[in-house]
Amino acid sequence: MANSRSGDKLLDRMVRILESFTADEPLLTVAQIAERADLPAATAYRLVGDLADQGLVVREAGGVRLGLRLWELANRASAARDLRRIALPYLEDLNQLLRQHTQLSVLHEDEVLVLERLSRPGAAVNKADVAGRLPVHRTSMGMVLLAFAPAHVQADYLARHGASAAERHGDIRRLLTDIRHHGYASFHGFVDDTTTGAAAPILDRSGHAVAAVGVVIPRGSDALAAVVMALMTAARGASRDLQGGGGRPVSH
Amino acid sequence: MANSRSGDKLLDRMVRILESFTADEPLLTVAQIAERADLPAATAYRLVGDLADQGLVVREAGGVRLGLRLWELANRASAARDLRRIALPYLEDLNQLLRQHTQLSVLHEDEVLVLERLSRPGAAVNKADVAGRLPVHRTSMGMVLLAFAPAHVQADYLARHGASAAERHGDIRRLLTDIRHHGYASFHGFVDDTTTGAAAPILDRSGHAVAAVGVVIPRGSDALAAVVMALMTAARGASRDLQGGGGRPVSH
Repeated sequence: MANSRSGDKLLDRMVRILESFTADEPLLTVAQIAERADLPAATAYRLVGDLADQGLVVREAGGVRLGLRLWELANRASAARDLRRIALPYLEDLNQLLRQHTQLSVLHEDEVLVLERLSRPGAAVNKADVAGRLPVHRTSMGMVLLAFAPAHVQADYLARHGASAAERHGDIRRLLTDIRHHGYASFHGFVDDTTTGAAAPILDRSGHAVAAVGVVIPRGSDALAAVVMALMTAARGASRDLQGGGGRPVSH
Repeated sequence: MANSRSGDKLLDRMVRILESFTADEPLLTVAQIAERADLPAATAYRLVGDLADQGLVVREAGGVRLGLRLWELANRASAARDLRRIALPYLEDLNQLLRQHTQLSVLHEDEVLVLERLSRPGAAVNKADVAGRLPVHRTSMGMVLLAFAPAHVQADYLARHGASAAERHGDIRRLLTDIRHHGYASFHGFVDDTTTGAAAPILDRSGHAVAAVGVVIPRGSDALAAVVMALMTAARGASRDLQGGGGRPVSH
């Protein structure tokens, strides 16, 4: 139907405009938006105007940025928010006890999407940003999410990225079985050479990971065993809260 | 231009669909969405399909909910995220020291939009939810945001809501001057009869509030003076970080 097609196309353009904005470049001129969204300047100008009328973007001195209205719409009923609400007290406990960056993430479109990150001044290097993405088979959180994913999710991921994963890990299936057996994942120097990451899953009633809790510590730290124990304890607490209460699973 | 008008109308419909989802009802059937967005069922069905194709909503057993993709788009470059990143360490300090709910909010469309909320088990009653809204002249955070708003923002608000504000507060302009003078706002039983709220502003270089930090404590607590002192100290720290570093102001 022509109507549907044009509507769909317009939505696609709107999404491409919203995608132009990044953590590093949150303020863009309309010309920059047109280039990034691959749109004619006049079209970008008109669509940015429509988005601004709805408060989804706002005009500022120097350019355009995402509006609070978009943030409000996306956050007030999101699965990310529910999960975050359940996990946050446990993340805070870990952050206080371990004095290292603590993160919450989910598997999303074959990547690790970071939902929350609590920082510590002077803690180990950490590349994760809230709403940023990390590679699955190069992070402890990703490996734990993959190990505890439903069978079809794991199979789909390996069908697409199995070769690259095997290049790094050798027998990836066996490694995932080991992670499931031990209940956590820990790898040295995955994202950064100077750090060790460790992660444990937040599980739903069927035993599948809905999220991962991760900590990054300096590589070679004697504290790793204690960190893993704290991490697993926190992840179990969050799993219990999720399974017992108002927790809704996150759709991938 | 016909094209622009139809595009604008479609975007308006999309936003109405996204607005249908709330914290209390994050999972809706297409029939519920059609009713709330005031759309014919067939139109709602088609537009929900378009939104689902983009990952902005996801279909689940029992209905439709907002997708992680929307959350990601809205969060990764938002002003809310920047502000939250700067304020979070201070909110955590307050939450730990005071053992009460601690909140961060901004003035948005004549209401108080809650950007962050750290909870304590057993703390005082608190109606604020992340991405939820509270009335301006009935909350301490709202009053402090209004008191420290740019003159034209304050004047616009009072032009629209001055009568209602005066009904509650009497001489509202004088009260706002007092709040500016003291550097904080504190009111008893504003939102809930059993609590006292207190709030202090996070200020930009021009001395205007970009956000408020608020605490809710049991009404009649002896700790109020100490709470206010901690709050003002934390808000000043956050103001300094905002003014010094990568902090960008939030557009209203």
